[in-house]
Amino acid sequence: MVSGGARAVARCDALGIAPYSDMAHGLYRGYLTTAYAAAQEALAEWMAQAGMAVRRDAAANLIGRYEGTLPGAPALLIGSHLDSVRDGGRYDGPLGIMLGVEAVAALHQTGQRLPFPIEVIAFGDEEGSRFPAAMLTSRAVAGTLALDALDLVDVDGVALAQAGVNLSDYLSAARAPGSTLAYLEAHIEQGPVLEAEGLAVGTVTGIAAQLRYQAVIKGIAGHAGTSSMPLRRDALAGAAEMILAIEGIARADASDLVATVGRIEAMPGAPNVIAGEVRFTIDIRSGDAARRDRAAESICDALAGIADRRDLDFAIQRVHDLPASPCDVALMDLMDAAIAAVGHPVRRLVSGAGHDAMVMAALCPTAMLFIRCRHGISHNPAEHVDPADVDVALQVMLGFIDRLGATFDPA
Amino acid sequence: MVSGGARAVARCDALGIAPYSDMAHGLYRGYLTTAYAAAQEALAEWMAQAGMAVRRDAAANLIGRYEGTLPGAPALLIGSHLDSVRDGGRYDGPLGIMLGVEAVAALHQTGQRLPFPIEVIAFGDEEGSRFPAAMLTSRAVAGTLALDALDLVDVDGVALAQAGVNLSDYLSAARAPGSTLAYLEAHIEQGPVLEAEGLAVGTVTGIAAQLRYQAVIKGIAGHAGTSSMPLRRDALAGAAEMILAIEGIARADASDLVATVGRIEAMPGAPNVIAGEVRFTIDIRSGDAARRDRAAESICDALAGIADRRDLDFAIQRVHDLPASPCDVALMDLMDAAIAAVGHPVRRLVSGAGHDAMVMAALCPTAMLFIRCRHGISHNPAEHVDPADVDVALQVMLGFIDRLGATFDPA
Repeated sequence: MVSGGARAVARCDALGIAPYSDMAHGLYRGYLTTAYAAAQEALAEWMAQAGMAVRRDAAANLIGRYEGTLPGAPALLIGSHLDSVRDGGRYDGPLGIMLGVEAVAALHQTGQRLPFPIEVIAFGDEEGSRFPAAMLTSRAVAGTLALDALDLVDVDGVALAQAGVNLSDYLSAARAPGSTLAYLEAHIEQGPVLEAEGLAVGTVTGIAAQLRYQAVIKGIAGHAGTSSMPLRRDALAGAAEMILAIEGIARADASDLVATVGRIEAMPGAPNVIAGEVRFTIDIRSGDAARRDRAAESICDALAGIADRRDLDFAIQRVHDLPASPCDVALMDLMDAAIAAVGHPVRRLVSGAGHDAMVMAALCPTAMLFIRCRHGISHNPAEHVDPADVDVALQVMLGFIDRLGATFDPA
Repeated sequence: MVSGGARAVARCDALGIAPYSDMAHGLYRGYLTTAYAAAQEALAEWMAQAGMAVRRDAAANLIGRYEGTLPGAPALLIGSHLDSVRDGGRYDGPLGIMLGVEAVAALHQTGQRLPFPIEVIAFGDEEGSRFPAAMLTSRAVAGTLALDALDLVDVDGVALAQAGVNLSDYLSAARAPGSTLAYLEAHIEQGPVLEAEGLAVGTVTGIAAQLRYQAVIKGIAGHAGTSSMPLRRDALAGAAEMILAIEGIARADASDLVATVGRIEAMPGAPNVIAGEVRFTIDIRSGDAARRDRAAESICDALAGIADRRDLDFAIQRVHDLPASPCDVALMDLMDAAIAAVGHPVRRLVSGAGHDAMVMAALCPTAMLFIRCRHGISHNPAEHVDPADVDVALQVMLGFIDRLGATFDPA
C-alpha cells in the first residue's frame, strides 16, 4: 500500500498538468480559472473519501470538515493554497493541502476524533496568481480584507466580480474571532537550509517582513537609428542601471536580506524604438523588518539618484507592506515535540517566503512545518520533494494534532 | 485653397487615428491589419482623385499608376510605407506616400505627362510592425526575398499565410530588372540635423549600416523570498548589466554610432519570482559599416563575459545585417539642383534609420529627400512636421521629376 506521504505527492503531481493547469506545458493555475475549478473538483473528491463534508466558501476556498466530539468547539484549520505562479512547481501550496487531507484520512481510518473539528482549507489566491493582489482568500477568511480591495482586474481585463465570485458576499468568508483554535500549514521550505543540514523537516518561527514596490521610469521614446547617444533619455538603460543598483545593495548586506526585480515591461517595446517608459517591480524581504526598511530606503535613494542623473521621470509606489509574522510560541513547542517524537532533530527556521499563515495570524495562533525540497528550488518546474520527507511531515502533523488535542481546554 | 504640402500633412493626420489605427488612442498600423486595410482604402481614393489607376500587388502593396507618353518606358517609383510602429508618429512613412500622390496630382492638374510612367507605391511592412521581419514588401518588389523568409507568425500566433496574402503568389510582386527607372522616397529626417541647421530639406547620401541581434539569457528561476543573493543566477540582473554595457560601448564611441535595446521580456515575469530567462534585442547602426562591426564585436564580447561571470547561459543571434546603402550619385545631383532651384541651401546627410529605399537599391537607382521634423523626434506620438517644409519638399520633388524627365534617355 502506498504511504500517505507518497499519495500526497502523487496527488500534487496529478494536479500539475492540464486540465488542472492553465498552461499546455507546465503548471500555471490561476485563481478562479478553469484549471482552478478542475483542481477543486478533484480535491473535493479526495476530501470526501477522507471522511470530510465538503463546501466552498464565499471567497471560493474549498473546505473539508471532519467533525470533533465536543459540540461548538473551535476548529483546527489545516491548509495552504491551490493556486500557482506561472510555470511554477507542483508542491508549493498543494502539498500542504494534501497533507491536511492525509492527516484527516489517517484519523478517519481508525475512527479517531479530536474534541474539536478539523477543517482542511484550500486557499485560492496566495501567489497573486491572477489579480494584482496576493493572499486575497486567506485575508477574506481572516477578516482583514476591505471591500474596496476587491476592485481588481486581471491581465486580460476580466474583473474579479466577473470571474465567478459574488463581491457583495465575498467578505462573508470571514470567520468569527474565537471560532478558530489554530491554523496549521505544512509547506516546502523553498530554500536551501534543511537540505544543507540534512533535515527532513523544520519548525517555522515566523515569516519575514516583505515590501513590494512598483517603479515607473519615463524617458523619451525615439528612433533607434537617428537619436544620438548623448541626447537620449532611454528609460530602459536607466532601468537597467537601477536593477543593478538594487542587486548591489542586497548583495552588500550579507544577511538574509533579499531584493528582486522579477517583472519588467519596456514600452513601446520595439527593437528599433528607444524605450520611453519602463515599469518594474521590486520585492524586498528580511526576517528583520528594520533591516528590510533600511535596505528599501537605500534602494529608493539610489533609484532617485540614477533617475536624476539621467534626466528621467521616476515614480515609485509601495504596493505591499507585510510585517514579519511570528508563529505561536506554544504551538512551536508542540511542533518541536512532535518532530522529536518521530526521531528527527529539532530545527527552527524563519520563512523568507510569505504564506497564508502570515495572514491567518490575525485570526488565530499559527504553526508552520517546513519540508525539505531539492536545492531549495521553487517557483520553477524543477521543484521537487522526497515522498519519504513528506511521510515524516505527515507523522509530525499527526503528532502535533494529537498534542493539540491533549492540551485542548474547552473552557 | 490648401497647399499640396498642407494636404499631405492633413491626410497623414487623418490616417493617425481609428479606424486607420489598430490602437484606440494613438497610432499603430500593422501590416495587413484592419487598420491597414482601411488606410489602403482611403489612399486608393486619393490616388484615383490624382488621376492614377490603382491596384494592389501580390505583397499587398497599394500602387497608383500615372501613365507616361512613351510606351514601354520604365517607371519612376515614388513611395514609402503605410505601416507604423506601436504608438508611433503620423508622418514616418505615410508622408512620403502622400507627397507622391501630391506630385502626381500637380502634374495631373496641368495635364503634364513625363515620357515615363510614375507609380506611387505604399509599401506594407517597413517597420517589422507585425511579423518578426522588416521591409518584407519592398524586398518582395525588389526581388530580394526568398520564399522561406515568409514563414512568419505574429505575436498572436497568426501566420503571414493566414493574414490576407497568398504566399505561393507573394514573390510575383517582384519587378523585372530594367522595368524601373528609379525609386524616389521623401521622408521625415527622424533626427536633429536639419532642424539644428535651420534647413527645411536635405539630400540623403545613403542609409547607415544596421545590425540587429536577439539575445537570450538563461539563469535559474526561483522564489524571490528564499533564494539567497549569492546563490542566485538571476537572468534579469544579468541582462541589466548587459544593457548598461551596450550603452557604455556606444557612448564611448563619439561618432554617429548608436546601439539600442528596445525590447525586453523577462520570464516568468512575476514580482515574486527571480527571472529564469530574459530575451532582448540589440540594434547597432553607423554610417560606417566597419565602425558598426567593431562595436558589434565589442558588445558581443562584453555580453559573453558578463554571462560567464554570472554563470548564465547566453545565446545571441544576428537577425538582420543590412549593409550601408548609398543613394545614386547622379540622382543626388538632380536633387541638389531641385533644392537650389527653389531657393534653399543644399545639404547632404546620411540616414541613421533604415528605409525601403535601401532595399530598392537592389532593383534600381534610389534617391531620398529628408524633411525637417521637430526635435528630431520620431517613433513617438510627438512626431511633428511643418506643412511649409512639406511644401518645399513637394516643389523639390516636382523639380526632381522634371529634371529626371529632361535627362531621360529612352535608348
